[in-house]
Amino acid sequence: MAKSERKTPPPDKTSGRYALSGLDRTIHEKARLGILTSLITRPDGLLFNDLKDLCALTDGNLNRHLKVLEDAGLVEIWKGFKNNRPQTLVRITPLGRTKFAEYLAVLQAVVAEAARGQKAVATTNSSAVFPHWGLAPG
Amino acid sequence: MAKSERKTPPPDKTSGRYALSGLDRTIHEKARLGILTSLITRPDGLLFNDLKDLCALTDGNLNRHLKVLEDAGLVEIWKGFKNNRPQTLVRITPLGRTKFAEYLAVLQAVVAEAARGQKAVATTNSSAVFPHWGLAPG
Repeated sequence: MAKSERKTPPPDKTSGRYALSGLDRTIHEKARLGILTSLITRPDGLLFNDLKDLCALTDGNLNRHLKVLEDAGLVEIWKGFKNNRPQTLVRITPLGRTKFAEYLAVLQAVVAEAARGQKAVATTNSSAVFPHWGLAPG
Repeated sequence: MAKSERKTPPPDKTSGRYALSGLDRTIHEKARLGILTSLITRPDGLLFNDLKDLCALTDGNLNRHLKVLEDAGLVEIWKGFKNNRPQTLVRITPLGRTKFAEYLAVLQAVVAEAARGQKAVATTNSSAVFPHWGLAPG
């Protein structure tokens, strides 16, 4: 039964435990996370140029990310005029608010787990820990 | 001076405030975040197959992400034998530990800010807030 001896799972091993499946990629992408974080506090929305500036994005990049967020129903985009100038207003939708809250809950759990991991290891002298089998650099 | 009237910056506006520039993309990518979170608690490393299972990744995907992390100096990869079978061991490096700690600090700040934003808005009736200028769906 060589096959069954092949793996010695660590005691706390759970299949897929670190798949972070709740971490919605639409929101997790760094630029989009910044966009949603800036919109979450502003129920009346942000002008395209202000959002661009807050997130330090180019026109093209902001447009691309807004398209992804709009297609997912997380933001809505309005065309209008202010002081007789065409303007674009971006707002988070109620669905966006819900999804962002869910995402944040998962992220908080990941951060808490990683922080616990760091602390647990901080007390260990990691150089003393080494597998008991022959190793060669990969 | 039409140009200077063009934008009315929100009171708390700071250029690039939501650029999240401290959020290292090498670590932030969802699969790599899972890989590092699983390695952070295990100073003696994880076998490739166990890591694959924990992160619910295919061989190809795990290899690709490990290459990125190894190139950045965040993980080290060892080839060896266990029970006469070739095995691959993956460990987080001291640099990986430092960078991951830095990343987590930034992430915690982002989560805290977004959570504050959510709470602040929860008391507002957002349907009552609407810009005072003509809008048409985009």
